[in-house]
Amino acid sequence: MGNVFDNPSFFSKYMELRSDYNYNDYLEHPAMESLLPPLKGRSVLDLGCGYGAYAMSFMRKGSSSYLGIDSSSHMIEKARTENAGAGISYRVLDLKSLDTLSTVFDVAYSSLVFHYIEDFDALLRNIYAILSDDGVLLFSQMHPLLTASYGYSGYFEGDYFAFSSYQEEGRREGRWFKEKVVSYHRRLSSIMNSLSDSGFIVDRVLEPIPREEDIREFSQLERDLVRPTFLCIRAIKKKSK
Amino acid sequence: MGNVFDNPSFFSKYMELRSDYNYNDYLEHPAMESLLPPLKGRSVLDLGCGYGAYAMSFMRKGSSSYLGIDSSSHMIEKARTENAGAGISYRVLDLKSLDTLSTVFDVAYSSLVFHYIEDFDALLRNIYAILSDDGVLLFSQMHPLLTASYGYSGYFEGDYFAFSSYQEEGRREGRWFKEKVVSYHRRLSSIMNSLSDSGFIVDRVLEPIPREEDIREFSQLERDLVRPTFLCIRAIKKKSK
Repeated sequence: MGNVFDNPSFFSKYMELRSDYNYNDYLEHPAMESLLPPLKGRSVLDLGCGYGAYAMSFMRKGSSSYLGIDSSSHMIEKARTENAGAGISYRVLDLKSLDTLSTVFDVAYSSLVFHYIEDFDALLRNIYAILSDDGVLLFSQMHPLLTASYGYSGYFEGDYFAFSSYQEEGRREGRWFKEKVVSYHRRLSSIMNSLSDSGFIVDRVLEPIPREEDIREFSQLERDLVRPTFLCIRAIKKKSK
Repeated sequence: MGNVFDNPSFFSKYMELRSDYNYNDYLEHPAMESLLPPLKGRSVLDLGCGYGAYAMSFMRKGSSSYLGIDSSSHMIEKARTENAGAGISYRVLDLKSLDTLSTVFDVAYSSLVFHYIEDFDALLRNIYAILSDDGVLLFSQMHPLLTASYGYSGYFEGDYFAFSSYQEEGRREGRWFKEKVVSYHRRLSSIMNSLSDSGFIVDRVLEPIPREEDIREFSQLERDLVRPTFLCIRAIKKKSK
């Protein structure tokens, strides 16, 4: 199955969305920044790096090296053109094939990708294997409250947010720019247990809340005063499972 | 004298109580049982023990001792009458005054009490202080999705469950048999972070799902196929914070 980001029409619409100041910029990105471990002298692996939006920023913060991987060759091409620099490299690689990497990393970073991954336990096993001792896994995903319902991400009725099927894990199909997008719903408890079973200690969990001044600029953020859109987790690799 | 069950108002309240009781029985209690650490030779502190419903069962599982504490002298009186035995003791003590206990315990257990506690961080600090190294904290509470909304625990609309104010933590007032009941809403992320900050490693999280055969017996459980009613957490005391 082709990567949806390799579809030119989808890709251009996605880039338009990304170039606007958006939900991710106001909520997910500041939350992830606040969770970043010290990067000085540490190697970073960016899982599902897209066009490498954060590569330069990680290097500026002192990372010894940055490897961005993404399954879309289109994205990696764009990353190599737009976000190149000393210590930065990219590779077309599916997250399912992490075990083909032979290097060890100090930090595994992933922004809004894990809810597209079917086998979370296998992914975590592979990340555990390529992290150094006390290595850090920092990731964000769509909040389980938004991946729960079938077909779309729930609805608002006044100040109330309604969702269904939270307890039922598995495949969900939605539409994004008319393209079918498949994601996988996992309950918060399952995410925590998978991390624990894979040898990680969860150190910090965030359900980002918008700032008042940002809501004044971008009123849609008000919804995140009711329910979170994103879930961000920082976990540390235990020395022995 | 007429039968009290012939009083419609009493009867409906009684049935409500029974259905609450069933809920715990079918969902919360089996989940907590599945999370119990080995009890053989270990001392247990039951926080908010009520009438000591689990005291005998803990002793049968091999606990070296059981202390149940509760702020209600009425409950402790009932516990001493109904659930007494060798190694079992009870004490009228508020969870706020845990620091007056001088003993150390191997297991701190608490069923459906923590959502009534205002200062969760202080509670966890006190529990940490009276746990042995590698001691286990096992607790359940109302799920944050049910403590979120003001006044009541959200509503169903078909297969959808609606809640409000999840992101807004703090005091909630509800009614139970016309009595005002105060509880405190905390987001799942905050619960996790408080545990981590207090020196605990979260080992297992459960959002209990009802069994098919139980739903056939008690159809209200079907709602827990959509959203969880309870949250159960097992956490281990880290040797050094």
